[in-house]
Amino acid sequence: MAITTLASPPLPSVERRPALPAGFVAGGTTAGIKASGRPDLALIVATGGPAAAAAVFTPNAFAAAPVKQSRANLAATSDDPRGGFGFASAVISTSGCANAATGAAGDADQEAVGRLVAGACGIDERHVLHLSTGIIGTRLPLDRVEAGVGNLYSALSGDDAGLRAAAEALRTTDSVLKAATTTLVLPAADGEPVTVTITGIAKGVGMIHPNMATMLSVVLTDAAAAPEVLWSVLRPAAARTWDQLSVDGDSSTNDTVFVMASGTAANAALAAGSHGAMAFQSALEAVARDLARQQAADGEGATILITASVTGAVDDADARAVARAVISSSLVKAAAHGKDPNWGRIAGAAGNATTASAAVLEAAGLAPDAAAARASQPAQLDPDRLRIAIAGHLVFDGSQGGPLDFDRAAARAAMDAAELLIELDLGLGDGIGEAFGCDLTQEYVIENSEYTT
Amino acid sequence: MAITTLASPPLPSVERRPALPAGFVAGGTTAGIKASGRPDLALIVATGGPAAAAAVFTPNAFAAAPVKQSRANLAATSDDPRGGFGFASAVISTSGCANAATGAAGDADQEAVGRLVAGACGIDERHVLHLSTGIIGTRLPLDRVEAGVGNLYSALSGDDAGLRAAAEALRTTDSVLKAATTTLVLPAADGEPVTVTITGIAKGVGMIHPNMATMLSVVLTDAAAAPEVLWSVLRPAAARTWDQLSVDGDSSTNDTVFVMASGTAANAALAAGSHGAMAFQSALEAVARDLARQQAADGEGATILITASVTGAVDDADARAVARAVISSSLVKAAAHGKDPNWGRIAGAAGNATTASAAVLEAAGLAPDAAAARASQPAQLDPDRLRIAIAGHLVFDGSQGGPLDFDRAAARAAMDAAELLIELDLGLGDGIGEAFGCDLTQEYVIENSEYTT
Repeated sequence: MAITTLASPPLPSVERRPALPAGFVAGGTTAGIKASGRPDLALIVATGGPAAAAAVFTPNAFAAAPVKQSRANLAATSDDPRGGFGFASAVISTSGCANAATGAAGDADQEAVGRLVAGACGIDERHVLHLSTGIIGTRLPLDRVEAGVGNLYSALSGDDAGLRAAAEALRTTDSVLKAATTTLVLPAADGEPVTVTITGIAKGVGMIHPNMATMLSVVLTDAAAAPEVLWSVLRPAAARTWDQLSVDGDSSTNDTVFVMASGTAANAALAAGSHGAMAFQSALEAVARDLARQQAADGEGATILITASVTGAVDDADARAVARAVISSSLVKAAAHGKDPNWGRIAGAAGNATTASAAVLEAAGLAPDAAAARASQPAQLDPDRLRIAIAGHLVFDGSQGGPLDFDRAAARAAMDAAELLIELDLGLGDGIGEAFGCDLTQEYVIENSEYTT
Repeated sequence: MAITTLASPPLPSVERRPALPAGFVAGGTTAGIKASGRPDLALIVATGGPAAAAAVFTPNAFAAAPVKQSRANLAATSDDPRGGFGFASAVISTSGCANAATGAAGDADQEAVGRLVAGACGIDERHVLHLSTGIIGTRLPLDRVEAGVGNLYSALSGDDAGLRAAAEALRTTDSVLKAATTTLVLPAADGEPVTVTITGIAKGVGMIHPNMATMLSVVLTDAAAAPEVLWSVLRPAAARTWDQLSVDGDSSTNDTVFVMASGTAANAALAAGSHGAMAFQSALEAVARDLARQQAADGEGATILITASVTGAVDDADARAVARAVISSSLVKAAAHGKDPNWGRIAGAAGNATTASAAVLEAAGLAPDAAAARASQPAQLDPDRLRIAIAGHLVFDGSQGGPLDFDRAAARAAMDAAELLIELDLGLGDGIGEAFGCDLTQEYVIENSEYTT
């Protein structure tokens, strides 16, 4: 018997393909940044002038040059000094060089990339957003980027194939291209329904040899939304999806998600908190959640996508903390790899959960004061109320004295699959949350220890 | 060139052997709890009546029955309702069964163990402290424990061999016996110097198949110290040593450290904050630090002891957070295994550091209000001031633009050793801290995925 309560609100379905919304052109090319000769330069341009844009960035204190540049540009195009939202006309992505830990010279390189893109596209360099992923501590080959941007600009496409090419050029060690698309209906100003598209491309969290896991995503929509509204829906959606994704616990120097809205669908402006904004947020979250699951499944050396689904927590922050603790535990990850229905490791990991930082809680919608009060507290748990199900088999029920006499062979057989669902019901309240991870394999260790810089 | 600033105050030297202080008898035996037939029952008894005692326990929300019982007993023998200190006459340890996640029946079993020990030793059961480690979710074989306690009591020894036997019986998957001893001189009431001994035995953090890493330690001294003074020196010492130890990031349900002081050395009572108490704390910390390093070096599958040493942080809490983030990073651990001087992974891990929970900060001496204000904040870092040295080779200097052109072959050669020192100087203040871990190996994954319950 599984625990059947949903740990996630019902979300719209998505298709795993890129679908370029109206108002954008996109493309990818091989500029020669990667030694492998694979595509490494992606460009997306808004054709109707600066689009509304919002971003979430890595919390890593050593943010890379593209992160710093993007944040500064968003701050310069809005009244938000945090750099969370603003306007943008283009996203440029370089793969193969992270431009991280490169000091002032690296910052100047990234500014030069912005000027190259602005010049090629005829836009203001403050309207360029930047992504990078790859080796850290090395400098960008600006001459190759310059030639690549020139070639790429002339080949930008308004078809889905253009966005697919951009997604290809985002990849590093990713084994598959990652994309997700959904649509929703919003009212136009005259009340007539219009269908808008939300599509996302992503890379990661497969480790980039030699240095970093980096998670990048660009989400595009033809919906009309003010930058601050985009941000207000992106932050909680990201808190429930990308923030709950872990392959090995490290946040990279370059992790970035951008959302850009061209507005060509001409829906009535989304007001924060309106039904339209809530529907848009659900659709955005559906895309984000599916991309996060694609990223977890493609973790380095991974063979199993693990989803931890938590219900019955005192609040959602606790539920997410417990889910995240479970999928982050090396012991749980190794047990998943061994098809071992080891509830003891799951309970032990849950017992170590502490709520996230105040910043994450605030992003997820808790008021700043409440978030500060809740941050870094142990999650509330009661062993006598906890229930645990592994791959649909209820294995522990605190109210029944704890360990259950379950069918171990059947549980092991159910774990022999590409996806593993671990469910925990805390029995304390109505808080829900989930988290996404992968198994820990010998291949992970080999890939990360045998490669030498 | 290494970074030569000390990240730890100079501590007294220790010897890696058990040395039973006056006022205690100890022993170990095979009771048959472990299927392997190896020693699994340890008993230490204070011969002169209840000794002053202090403890630190796992923060895991699913604390095992022995943890709950010990905390309750300490609370019952002092005016401290938290159960951090009190009086105790005996420590009983069972290996092979953790008595965790066993519900009310398991709690009753642990109480029965206390009655057995109290009966055999002729003491109050509230003066019995409890340790357990082993499989979780299984019940203690009380009949075997009863027979074992009887046999063991008659064979208790006041020699070092008795404490060695107890240390043997603490072991589970530990590849070596862990013990550390130091001495210090304190004034007696008449001003004459007396030499006191501090000795510790420990197990862990090698993983106990099938379920948990558990870290146990018992520290004994013949010094005279009030329970609350013992606790006041144990907490900061543990915060700088055991709390900075990680093999795979999980805290077990059973982690426990006890300190007991028989007082037979007849030193003048240690006053909190006095020179004597500070000297005693340094000696205790030396024992704790050495035991923690022995535990890290013996991590499951480990081949290298990694020490991260951080200087120049804005405060000690930040320094410890950065050190802990570095030794906890799977990427850093895998790089260490591959003898890869990969400063990018070290910088990236440092960038993810956040200060510990308020409870840990408070234990480390920050006032509760200050601790709450500092908890769960990102550590303060500035890439332009950071310096990193790996195995004595300075590889990154932010003030020199970042990556240095170091002798990679020499660095790799220096990493080919049983111990690896990673030094970070943050260049921001005078906060120092260190942390202890081990490399991530294929053997870790094999041991933790191929064993099935």
